[in-house]
Amino acid sequence: MLTRPDVAVVGAGPVGLAIAWRCAARGLRVTVHDPAPGSGASHVAAGMLSPVAEAYFGEHELTGLLAESAARWPRFAADLAEASGADVGYRADGTLVVGLTADDLAEARRLWSYQQGLGLPITPLRPSELRDREPALAPRVRGGAVAPGDHQVDPRRLVPALRAAAERAGAVLRPARVGALSEVDARVTVVAAGCGAADLTGLPVRPVKGQVLRLRAPGRGAPDFRHVIRGYADGESIYLVPRDSGEVVVGATVEERADTEVTAGAVLRLLRAAVDLVPELAEYDLVEATAGLRPGTPDNAPIIGSLPGRPGVLVATGHHRHGIVLTPVTADLVTELIVTGEPDPLLAPFTPDRFGKERRWN
Amino acid sequence: MLTRPDVAVVGAGPVGLAIAWRCAARGLRVTVHDPAPGSGASHVAAGMLSPVAEAYFGEHELTGLLAESAARWPRFAADLAEASGADVGYRADGTLVVGLTADDLAEARRLWSYQQGLGLPITPLRPSELRDREPALAPRVRGGAVAPGDHQVDPRRLVPALRAAAERAGAVLRPARVGALSEVDARVTVVAAGCGAADLTGLPVRPVKGQVLRLRAPGRGAPDFRHVIRGYADGESIYLVPRDSGEVVVGATVEERADTEVTAGAVLRLLRAAVDLVPELAEYDLVEATAGLRPGTPDNAPIIGSLPGRPGVLVATGHHRHGIVLTPVTADLVTELIVTGEPDPLLAPFTPDRFGKERRWN
Repeated sequence: MLTRPDVAVVGAGPVGLAIAWRCAARGLRVTVHDPAPGSGASHVAAGMLSPVAEAYFGEHELTGLLAESAARWPRFAADLAEASGADVGYRADGTLVVGLTADDLAEARRLWSYQQGLGLPITPLRPSELRDREPALAPRVRGGAVAPGDHQVDPRRLVPALRAAAERAGAVLRPARVGALSEVDARVTVVAAGCGAADLTGLPVRPVKGQVLRLRAPGRGAPDFRHVIRGYADGESIYLVPRDSGEVVVGATVEERADTEVTAGAVLRLLRAAVDLVPELAEYDLVEATAGLRPGTPDNAPIIGSLPGRPGVLVATGHHRHGIVLTPVTADLVTELIVTGEPDPLLAPFTPDRFGKERRWN
Repeated sequence: MLTRPDVAVVGAGPVGLAIAWRCAARGLRVTVHDPAPGSGASHVAAGMLSPVAEAYFGEHELTGLLAESAARWPRFAADLAEASGADVGYRADGTLVVGLTADDLAEARRLWSYQQGLGLPITPLRPSELRDREPALAPRVRGGAVAPGDHQVDPRRLVPALRAAAERAGAVLRPARVGALSEVDARVTVVAAGCGAADLTGLPVRPVKGQVLRLRAPGRGAPDFRHVIRGYADGESIYLVPRDSGEVVVGATVEERADTEVTAGAVLRLLRAAVDLVPELAEYDLVEATAGLRPGTPDNAPIIGSLPGRPGVLVATGHHRHGIVLTPVTADLVTELIVTGEPDPLLAPFTPDRFGKERRWN
């Protein structure tokens, strides 16, 4: 590409690649800069699309964006399958939220009552209903609820599919690290570099470590349970994401650390909670234990929009634990902003200028 | 090597390599046949030299051989260091045997009373003495004993050291798999192929799966404890082997299976017991989870000596959980048998003919 691109995207995770794909599909000339596409938080992510089960106290505006993006996912997945020829493992089996002990159930209930109060689709189940839906749950699980609209995709299939779609639409991948925005020459630069956005923009993005396990059903069949299971088990909050391949993702710790070591204590806590909730997992192979760094922000919400004082620079980062579910809406809104120059009102709560003086320029 | 070798050793684990080294050092022409030296049980082994803590009810003759070989280890390690220029991590810090709960302690006591009855060096400690020796033990550990003569080496340093010593002495490594003894042409063939000995000889050697973890102290310093710790923790029997490098080996399951998958349930049980006994291990990195196959025999004792009906074929296999500790005595006795043609009386309980009609020829 000899001419100056219209859009340079820094970061080839799901968010960056989806923006590149959508922009290229709109006829813009796009470059994507990343020495190792898909090697950031998405490589470790489980891929839950959970606007309901991830609706926490005090995060009202984020909850709205999660719901908006989750609603876009079925169409996004279908478009992507058509554009890339690849399947990203979208599954709509729904999510069960369960509590192991009476205390765990009380904690779970407190949250789903709040979610019901927001009008979100989550329905408490009688223990017999819970077991009918998922016989693999341990008999001692005290109770639960179903969030039928909380689905899943496979992030490790998402990244190559997005890359194929972006490249087929004409985007060019540049496998090099960008150390400063001055190294990039384009009409618009989009910083979608996850934790790397902090150094590039001065925005308050910090790494939040997560440790995740991958199990595999013996004999390589599918796991015996179909739902995503989010559980509280003796105070530990974990999720179990079953895939058709036989994989079960077990996660995740949330640690204010920037290393990516896997620790004995974290693996112990994840395995103990997983086996307490679904005993058959003890017989599964443990095939991977990994740690990744989520791009966290002071208010746990993403940072999407124009970087103040830096004309031509947009950011799309800080997606923390929600990068996969927020990929469609982020890509759509950023692409619209680039094409029209006008921010969608949906973006208002998430713009970079909300951090005011906290920002330091690099 | 164009002339027919005096000795062909099938299998380049510690036992096979040590025999090759000792024979070559005696002036014999030696070949060693293995496509992947050190890739069998020794790759997973912890390297405990535990004649006392491994003295179990009903294994009187094995206990004697373990003690004999452990007594040879200091000299063997020194000779090997001189011959190879490498250090095998021999450490004489001793072993603590501990029980977490009252039930665990009762089980441990029953065994060490038996061991004391045999005159073996194991001494019960008062709880305060136990903590003085090893402050890293959990406060709830109920009690324990010390076996000062139970030491350790690092099997992953042992194999390359033995290989270097054997090659320096003139042994030639042939990196190919031996599918049948007819493929090997030598005056004497020694089958030291671990589990592979079953197919080569028809002897009743079976794989016994063991799952083992390797942790690493944070910051890469040495672990905070010096002793090998063998513990009973809520009915789980485990060991913790600290190394100067910061590594701690945590093992091991004993499973009548022939696969080498790492399972979630086994990792959970090992980690739970490890952290219950030494809480600081929760903060250690989990760097490896592996499974290996020990060569087990009907009476848990090794098979060493001439193969009946097959002149010129010796076997040295079936070392089960004791391959590392038994390496010196096995190498010495097999070498003497080859050189003199006369079996040492020590070998009498361990010869292949003890299985009589159970043997099937291949």
